[in-house]
Amino acid sequence: MGEHKYKELSNKLRTDIQTGVYTEGQRLPSENELVDQTGYSRQTIRQAMSLLEKEGLTSRIRGSGTYVRSAVPKRAATHNIAVVTTYIGEYIFPAILHGIDEVLSENGYTPMLSATRNRVDNERRILTEFLQKPIDGIIVEGTKTALPNPNIDLYARFKELGIPVVFINGFYPDLKKPIYVVADDRAGGRKVCEELLRKGHRNIAGFFKSDDIQGHRRYAGYADALRSVDLPVSDDHVLWFTTENCDELLSSLTMSTLENCTAAVCYNDEVAMKVLNVLQSNEISTPEQIELTSFDNSTLAQLSAVKFLSLANPKEQLGRLAAQKLLNILQYKEETPSVLPWKIE
Amino acid sequence: MGEHKYKELSNKLRTDIQTGVYTEGQRLPSENELVDQTGYSRQTIRQAMSLLEKEGLTSRIRGSGTYVRSAVPKRAATHNIAVVTTYIGEYIFPAILHGIDEVLSENGYTPMLSATRNRVDNERRILTEFLQKPIDGIIVEGTKTALPNPNIDLYARFKELGIPVVFINGFYPDLKKPIYVVADDRAGGRKVCEELLRKGHRNIAGFFKSDDIQGHRRYAGYADALRSVDLPVSDDHVLWFTTENCDELLSSLTMSTLENCTAAVCYNDEVAMKVLNVLQSNEISTPEQIELTSFDNSTLAQLSAVKFLSLANPKEQLGRLAAQKLLNILQYKEETPSVLPWKIE
Repeated sequence: MGEHKYKELSNKLRTDIQTGVYTEGQRLPSENELVDQTGYSRQTIRQAMSLLEKEGLTSRIRGSGTYVRSAVPKRAATHNIAVVTTYIGEYIFPAILHGIDEVLSENGYTPMLSATRNRVDNERRILTEFLQKPIDGIIVEGTKTALPNPNIDLYARFKELGIPVVFINGFYPDLKKPIYVVADDRAGGRKVCEELLRKGHRNIAGFFKSDDIQGHRRYAGYADALRSVDLPVSDDHVLWFTTENCDELLSSLTMSTLENCTAAVCYNDEVAMKVLNVLQSNEISTPEQIELTSFDNSTLAQLSAVKFLSLANPKEQLGRLAAQKLLNILQYKEETPSVLPWKIE
Repeated sequence: MGEHKYKELSNKLRTDIQTGVYTEGQRLPSENELVDQTGYSRQTIRQAMSLLEKEGLTSRIRGSGTYVRSAVPKRAATHNIAVVTTYIGEYIFPAILHGIDEVLSENGYTPMLSATRNRVDNERRILTEFLQKPIDGIIVEGTKTALPNPNIDLYARFKELGIPVVFINGFYPDLKKPIYVVADDRAGGRKVCEELLRKGHRNIAGFFKSDDIQGHRRYAGYADALRSVDLPVSDDHVLWFTTENCDELLSSLTMSTLENCTAAVCYNDEVAMKVLNVLQSNEISTPEQIELTSFDNSTLAQLSAVKFLSLANPKEQLGRLAAQKLLNILQYKEETPSVLPWKIE
């Protein structure tokens, strides 16, 4: 009922603008005037006005009123969607991209893929290129999301151009009201650590990525689980690595990080496999001497001769949901962020 | 005038509570009732009520009213202040502690010092000990402030006990309305990088600490400066290290990080000295081939045979200000955070 009324009002105002009842730069009636004219509630009137603003037909000027926008030629729909991820052909990324592509192609959109390799210089180059290309929207995996991002200005530029952005896996806290689809990494970190505690482990190490926010959240969940049973979080048993120094640090510091431990939480399956290699070359058996847990349940974990618990990444679902959100925004529908659970498969 | 009125009212209500006009658990008159009784503005009445609440005499229950608290025996003042920093006898810490001690001792307080060495397990042990000790308040430098902190529960415990905490250098974003004194690290990072740009450098590397928020902020300022003149922020020219792997990474990766660069921004003087050592053993001259800038202008920088620009840390001032804020809070005065500028001495 309320919904019907606000659409009715926005339809009327839209027609008035399109037929020149209100012309470029003219002020629309105020909220109070519209309450008087229509008898609708202030709430209904705000919804209608907000919709017109979102459609780009009007602009609100604080303390002044709502005006008909000058006729910016509406960008012609290109049906291209930029998809910027850290990687494309490796690990869980084909599955995420498959989910995105499914929804986009069903709806007549074409994805244009680029990979940043989690480098902010690549991110800048790619976003700058997409600013010149005919695209309707972007799905992007944030780059080094646990560090300040030097490319925030480009995201602001897309916003100015009316090109919506949906983030996956990680996003930048500096952005205002970002729309994103991520996994619940803190709950996931807690879950894997609790599995190890349930099996009787008391000295549990952690290998986490410091430049992506997923690493921080998984660590926070790991610490939550330890604290919940009054076990200490020891700095000696946590190894932080970055995109760039992951290989080097895991080679040199895995053994000292695991000292006196019987289990470990690994950032993802790639890290788990590297830790496993170090353990094997030191003739330490898994899970007998050190039990590992991990994230993503990728083919790496599935094909590994040594089995370990790896939480299932909602990858296809995550990709589909991100694409659906972007298409909804392109149709002026309200969207909100989503946080998906990690599951034991 | 307004101030006079709210103090008058709070004095009257305090006396009423102390003399038993209002007894334990009894509801005080509502705002409306007090407006009627006193003729004062709602604003004045709120100020008076808020003061009593801060003093611990009353509790406000949302949607119900303000009640006289059960007589929790007020903690006897001990005139001890816990001071928890990452280090004590090294680097800039003696100066910070000197500033703190000056203000505390002038006011009859004794500092009790402890060092975390930037480890969360030490932080937990120290805070747990201080929960058992007779202290009136804490001045604390956050530990690994760029990572999720597993000891937030202990800070909540101090709050429950009415023991105020003032942070220096870094604090935890998970805390509600923390009071802190920090240096403006983002502006500092921008300033040193702009100095290098002004001298004509175009390829400028950065060495930053990833587990302390100061490292993130100094990097953000460095990136701001580069972006302001349209220079790229290259991942290859930024080295991130942690408290634990600083020595190792600087030894192995300084030269590759500096490739094609003529200058670098270093996280602090300790890092600058390590970079300098690597340069010297590679027979690279400073500032001719690589010019360094840094933070803290410590004795390390001042006594170095090779000179480089190092911004002056407001260390004594920072310590004094933190101590003053804590003493103010202990006297029920309102306090706010402070951000101090970096200066070129």
